[in-house]
Formats: sequence, C-alpha cells, structure tokens
Amino acid sequence: MSIILVTNDDGIHAEGLQVLRRSLQPLGRIVVVAPDRDNSAVSHSLTMTRPLQVRRIGEDTYTVDGTPTDCVVLALGRILEGRPDLLVSGINAGPNLGDDISYSGTVSAAMEGTMYSVPSMAVSLAGEPPFDYTLAGELSRKMAAKILDTVLPHNTLINMNVPTGSKHQGIRITRQGRRLWENAIQETEDPWGRKRYWIGGGTPVKDSSEDTDVKAVHDGYVSVTPIQLDLTNHSGISHIRKNWSLE
Amino acid sequence: MSIILVTNDDGIHAEGLQVLRRSLQPLGRIVVVAPDRDNSAVSHSLTMTRPLQVRRIGEDTYTVDGTPTDCVVLALGRILEGRPDLLVSGINAGPNLGDDISYSGTVSAAMEGTMYSVPSMAVSLAGEPPFDYTLAGELSRKMAAKILDTVLPHNTLINMNVPTGSKHQGIRITRQGRRLWENAIQETEDPWGRKRYWIGGGTPVKDSSEDTDVKAVHDGYVSVTPIQLDLTNHSGISHIRKNWSLE
Amino acid sequence: MSIILVTNDDGIHAEGLQVLRRSLQPLGRIVVVAPDRDNSAVSHSLTMTRPLQVRRIGEDTYTVDGTPTDCVVLALGRILEGRPDLLVSGINAGPNLGDDISYSGTVSAAMEGTMYSVPSMAVSLAGEPPFDYTLAGELSRKMAAKILDTVLPHNTLINMNVPTGSKHQGIRITRQGRRLWENAIQETEDPWGRKRYWIGGGTPVKDSSEDTDVKAVHDGYVSVTPIQLDLTNHSGISHIRKNWSLE
Amino acid sequence: MSIILVTNDDGIHAEGLQVLRRSLQPLGRIVVVAPDRDNSAVSHSLTMTRPLQVRRIGEDTYTVDGTPTDCVVLALGRILEGRPDLLVSGINAGPNLGDDISYSGTVSAAMEGTMYSVPSMAVSLAGEPPFDYTLAGELSRKMAAKILDTVLPHNTLINMNVPTGSKHQGIRITRQGRRLWENAIQETEDPWGRKRYWIGGGTPVKDSSEDTDVKAVHDGYVSVTPIQLDLTNHSGISHIRKNWSLE
Repeated sequence: MSIILVTNDDGIHAEGLQVLRRSLQPLGRIVVVAPDRDNSAVSHSLTMTRPLQVRRIGEDTYTVDGTPTDCVVLALGRILEGRPDLLVSGINAGPNLGDDISYSGTVSAAMEGTMYSVPSMAVSLAGEPPFDYTLAGELSRKMAAKILDTVLPHNTLINMNVPTGSKHQGIRITRQGRRLWENAIQETEDPWGRKRYWIGGGTPVKDSSEDTDVKAVHDGYVSVTPIQLDLTNHSGISHIRKNWSLE
Repeated sequence: MSIILVTNDDGIHAEGLQVLRRSLQPLGRIVVVAPDRDNSAVSHSLTMTRPLQVRRIGEDTYTVDGTPTDCVVLALGRILEGRPDLLVSGINAGPNLGDDISYSGTVSAAMEGTMYSVPSMAVSLAGEPPFDYTLAGELSRKMAAKILDTVLPHNTLINMNVPTGSKHQGIRITRQGRRLWENAIQETEDPWGRKRYWIGGGTPVKDSSEDTDVKAVHDGYVSVTPIQLDLTNHSGISHIRKNWSLE
Repeated sequence: MSIILVTNDDGIHAEGLQVLRRSLQPLGRIVVVAPDRDNSAVSHSLTMTRPLQVRRIGEDTYTVDGTPTDCVVLALGRILEGRPDLLVSGINAGPNLGDDISYSGTVSAAMEGTMYSVPSMAVSLAGEPPFDYTLAGELSRKMAAKILDTVLPHNTLINMNVPTGSKHQGIRITRQGRRLWENAIQETEDPWGRKRYWIGGGTPVKDSSEDTDVKAVHDGYVSVTPIQLDLTNHSGISHIRKNWSLE
Repeated sequence: MSIILVTNDDGIHAEGLQVLRRSLQPLGRIVVVAPDRDNSAVSHSLTMTRPLQVRRIGEDTYTVDGTPTDCVVLALGRILEGRPDLLVSGINAGPNLGDDISYSGTVSAAMEGTMYSVPSMAVSLAGEPPFDYTLAGELSRKMAAKILDTVLPHNTLINMNVPTGSKHQGIRITRQGRRLWENAIQETEDPWGRKRYWIGGGTPVKDSSEDTDVKAVHDGYVSVTPIQLDLTNHSGISHIRKNWSLE
C-alpha cells in the first residue's frame, strides 16, 4: 500500500488539510505531519534556533511546533519508518503563482520532499474566501494517482493551482510567470501614534504571457507547473564566463 | 553617485555586515537596512501577520523588526527615495551552497531585490568560526564594481561564496550543486524528560560533480553562481505534456 | 442568568479548559475566550507590540493569538456586551503555588479580571501527568457557585489548587507560601556544540510553614488562597520612613 | 567591593540601561545581564519552552535571548560566581505605577532577585519621550548606596519612579495605587480588511488617593514604594474562614 505524507502551511486545523486527507484516503495510508498553527509566508524556513516538539495527536496524525519544512524534515527523518511514496502539501487557502511561490510554505514543503527524492506536489486553491475545496480535492486525488503511477522528472515537483468552485476550463501545463504586486505596503499607526508598515494587500500585476501559471488560472484553467530544485541560470554561466573575465 | 542597498540575515550587529559596508564605501552611498536580530535560515519569509517597525539608528542605517525579505521590501517601497543601483546581501557567516541556498535569508534578500529589477548579489563566507572576512570584503567590492559597470543576465542574481582567510585559488563561475545532510537531526530532552528534535549539525554529503559551487569551494576557489528567479523545469513541461495526457 | 467568562493559559485545545466549561455549564452562560496555543509561564504579559486577532470558532467560543491577559482585556473590552458575573481561569495542568504564582498565566488572567472588578478565580490541578480533572471540575463548580452567591473581599481573587484524582482531605484557606527551586537550570548543547541553558526541571524546596498553600497541597488538601492586587509592603512604608530619612 | 547586577526590559541597547550602568559605577563592580531586544510588558515571564543562549558581548556584559526574569535566573544561577550585593533593574523608559507594575518586566526582574534574597530595586522614568535620564541616574545611585548601607524589609523590593528632567519636588514613600486605563484598545485593520485589536494607548484614570505612587508622581515627586512578594490578602483569610464555611 502506498504511504502518502500530507502537510501544509496553514496548520493542522486548516480545512484544506482535512479535505486533502479525505481526498487521498482511497490511494493509501495517509500520514499527516503539519505545523501546530498557521505558518503562511514562512517560505522555506527551517527552525534551527530551538529544538522542536513532535506531538502525536491522533492515528497517523502529528503536529510540530515549527514550519512546513520542519515538518517534512522530521517526518522523513524521525516520524515515518521508511520513505513515503508521495508527499502532498496543501490545500493552501489561496494561490501560489509566479514569483510568489518563492515565499510559499506550501511549495517549500514539496521542495523539501523533492530534495529527499520523495515525489512531491503542492496544491493551492487559486481563489478567495469563502473557499470551496470540492474541485481541488478531486484534482489532488487525480494528480496524486498519476504521480504514483508514473514518474516525475528528476529533482522536480508539481505545483498545482486549482480554481475555486466545482468547474474548470481544463488543465494546462504551465511555466512559472511573474507576479508583482503594486501598493503592497499599508501604512498604519500603533496606539502611540508611531508609523508601522504592514506588508500585504495591494493588487497583483498580472502576467499575461502565454503558458504561464498566472495566465492559466486567470483564464479559469487548472495550472500544473513542474518546478525544479536547480536555480542556476545555465545560459548565464556562459555569458559571465565570456564577458566578465573573472576566472 | 551609485546608491547601494546593504542588508543581511545575521542582523544589524553582525560583523559581516560592518565589513561589507566598509568594503563598499568607495563605490557610492551605502544605505543599510537590516533585521534588528539574527534571522538565519528564515529563507524567503515575508512577515504579513503583523505590521513592521522601521527604526533609523544612524545616518543611512535602519533596522526592521522582521526578516531580510521584509527589509528589502520596506527599503525599496518606503525607505529609499529611488531604486538603488545595487543590492548586496551579506557577508553571511557561513556558506550558502547547493540546495541550502533555498533556506538562505542572505540569498533570498538578493532574490527579492532581483524581483524588483535591482541588480543583486549575495555574499557568504564559506568557512567556519573564527571568521576572517578580509578576502570576502575585498571580493565583494570587486564584484560590486563589476556589476555596477556591466549588466547582469535578466532576472538573475549573483551568489558568491568566498573561502575564509586571505588567500584563494581563483574564481570559478559555477552551477548550483546538491548539498544533502546526513544525521542533521539531534535528539535532546527538555528539562521534563520529553524528547525534542533539534535540526542542525550533521555532516554535508559533498557534491563532487564538476562545475558546482560545492566543489569549487571545497577546492579552495571563490564560487560565483548566477541564480535565476524562474524555477520552471522547462524540459519537464514537454515531458509531462507528452506523457501524462492531462490537457 | 449568570455570565461566566472562562479562559486559561494552556490554550483553547487544553483538556482542563474543556472540563472547566462543562463543569460550570449548570451555573449560567459560559463564554470561552482563550489563547490559540499554549501560553504557560507567560505571567501577566500583555501584548502591545502587535495588533491581536480574535476568532470566533464556535458558539460563545473565541480564540486570541495572544496571552491569557490579552484574552481577558479583549473579552471585557470588545467581545462581551456587559461585565460578566464571574471569571474562571483554568484548569491549569499543574500547580500554581507559592512564589510560582507570579509567573502564572492562569493566576494573571484572574488578576486582570479583578482589576476590572470582575469576581475572579484561578483553578489549578496540583498534580503530575496523567491528569485526572474529575475532582477539580467538581470543586470549580462548587467554588464558582459560592462566589456567585456571596461577595469576594475587595480587589481580591481566589487561587485554588486541587489535588489530582477523585479524593481529597478537605479544603484549607491558606496564605501564599514560598516555593523555591533547586537546580532549575539544565545545561544542554545546540547541534553546533554551543552551550544553552534550559530553565525548568529541578526540585521544589517545599515550604512546610503552617497555613501555606504549598503545605496544604502537600498534605492532600484543596488549597484556597485569597490573593490581592495591592503589592505594597505597608509595614515597610513606616520602616523606610523612620530609618531612611528620604522624605 | 560590592557587586551590582544590572538588568532591564528595554533590552541591551536601551539608553536607560547605559545611564544606569554609568551612574552605579562608583559603587562597585557592575555586571550587566540584559535581554538582547526590547521586552516591554512581558511581565514576570519565564522562558521554559526553549533553551536560552547567553552571549558575553563585552567585559561584565551579557545578553540573553529571553526575558528580564530569564536574565536574572541565569545571572544568579550561571553567570555570576556568587550572590550579588544588589540588583537594579531599569531605567525603564516610562512609568511603572499602580496596577501596571504587575505587567512590568522591569519590576518583575527586581521581584525575581528578591525571591533569591538579593536586595533589589526597579527604577523607572515617569515621563514621556524625549526622555531625560539625568535625575533618574543620580537618584539610582543615591538609592543604591542607601540599600547597600542598610537593609531592606524582608522579601521586599523598592519600586522607584522618577520624574523626567533635572528637578523634583522631593521624595515620597508611597503605597501602590490603582491605575486603570480607559479606551485602551485601538481597532485597526490588517491589509486584507480584517479587524484587529491593538492594546495600548488610551488614557489612565489617575488615582488621586493620598500616599499613592500615582499621586506622588503626578505632583512632581519621586515615588519610592516597598513592594512585597507575598500576595496574600491576610484579612481576606479570616473573612473567608468565617463566612464561607468551606473548611
């Protein structure tokens, strides 16, 4: 029987996590290892300044007082007996598209799994509250079954963004687009009248290039992007070699 | 005169930050915006759960009660009048090589600058304490001058790792290698005898492939890697399109 | 119908809180406002560095991303329409005796209620895991009914410590004793071999003076201590006036 | 030579701490053990969820990544060889008067010292920014000398509040008054339009009773209050015994 590790960044009590667990149930034994509270936007953070506590709060269900990456590290290194057949992270309450995926705890958990050679997928609901996870749950199972049956490209994870609701226009295999934000710093005051800056809000400057994850979701499609661990700009290497005369 | 934004993840009081500021001084006006305390291994974390406080603690010197990424967002969006000509993040006390760069606050700050089209570089001292920043300071100035004089490949930052001490074997333009860790979870107990897990320590499984950052530093060279924002596995797109029949 | 505000410092998911809610149910309408996670040993901390979030997670059930004191301040200032007839904080998983009560979030929540003239009681289970809350639940209801029926001394709260299990030797009205700890700092190492100090553990130096809370619990009694807001050493005032010639 | 332990809750970089150190210098050897960042309003919090790091950052100067109480516990248990002759906590940037002292990290550090039988004093500047510490520094030395020369009442610390500036009306030995706040919750919104509550601001409802710390400072006097560890309402014990028929 397949063993599937499930984690997220919205924390153990998030609805998306419960939907994901139920959706994947028919595919094997599901082990949940998730942060004990909301960890949105923690990115690939690893907690190294303090020791972590693992709590078993139910059958095949654990919490960690840390980040999604901490959860994956401890699940693979301590909690699970062997390597799982699949890791699914999500379902995130909100999209993970374009440049934003580098901030994403959801995607980072899948990246961590990939580093340990566990086939990994991140699933996000590309909508706004109130969230309807119906479609995202179904597609998570479908994609998970596909990954279990086939093989992912080397050192590569799947980043899937699903429109909210029960309908979609189809599935598109996409590349990561740009997703910049305008006016994403709000000024506020503390009770003593001192200025404070709250990052968030603003409006995304949509990337309308063809083939991007941003565009696919905007057009009502499910976006499936293969994301790799290697961040090298390989053509940049030759460029720098030729023009910078450093070596 | 060039304006150079300097940040780091070890916090405003770190020696590496002071060395970097002094080293870059001849190149222009240096503005430091750094976390008010150590933020190692926070990765590309963005603080969105609370408003942030910016303190001006000296001429062209600011602290933020947040992460390196928070510092860059606030520097570019609020503190600086215009876009700086260069962003340099570091000098990190320890290497940022291979897979580890995805956890790195130092590299993430440079990634954030790149998202905003600011030419950006991360500098790390690839050694162990006691740290000697002499060489890293000199090379930071040399590389910064090079970037100011020329142009970086599109959406690409420089990740430089410098051996500690005053000598090196030369400079190598490298690709990101693998850097896995063995036994990187230490078990300890809290005062009440409950098991805790501390991530850290262990031994790196060195990547000895040619052309990697890991190998270059191991051989005593300065490693210079062009890192891109785009995480897409482009060849993976065709593979999935052809074999998975999803679309 | 009486309105009873219930809070604690072990967080919304703690068993002691659930027992307390059920036990008090027959006495009136119970409104729970508790921290969203464990806040043990936060003492009378008030969160003023960031704004707090109140979540309604069920009927008459709220969480705050802050301390027990934050919960009381927001319950009285925002969540409840009028002043409650009683505040009960607990049931804490462990004793709050002697000097230790000054660290206690459980007692501090009751202190905060007292400041706002709400009759308040802190309840702690003076035992060790596994905890049996049976007796503590029953006595909480009994004491709560007593406070609702009568009147507490001015600016005074009740600190009750109940032995674990289903039996006790009787109830004693006590004074706060001393409770010092020996060897309460444990040395440990982080994964990089650096020394760290973990406060906790050690052995309590029991206060065997008559009439103290420490002694009562040690002898198997329920301890009920009236605690006041006024921290002044009134006889100390005359002493200093006479001998220090400051005024 | 006397050994004087100095700590605070505004953190190692606070001006009030530097003034205090310089002011006390003539009286003996000063050892500073302070939090590495601002810890205002942490009250008597003790950090027991993670191990703490002590850094020696200069001669007789240490930081702890924790609270003022953590600093005192580690100073007395690990850093200092013997018991110091005096502990002075401050100079706090703002008053610690009336009920508010139960939230105060500054006063709690002095309370912790008193628990370990170290003569202890908390000093606060009862004014608003910009702070002038001149007078507070002088009076700290004067009071410290007095405490070193004489003896404090048993289990009792001194809470001193000094008006800002260079003049005062005299010194008054006071009792702790009431200090309630009106409108001390500010409503704000996060960037996504969700309501948040920020505790702080508001206006203090002054206690105009004779002999209180609140009144003394309001009238321009230095307030010196003896504060005791024992929180018991002793007359409340007889009241409850007589009227509640519990025992």
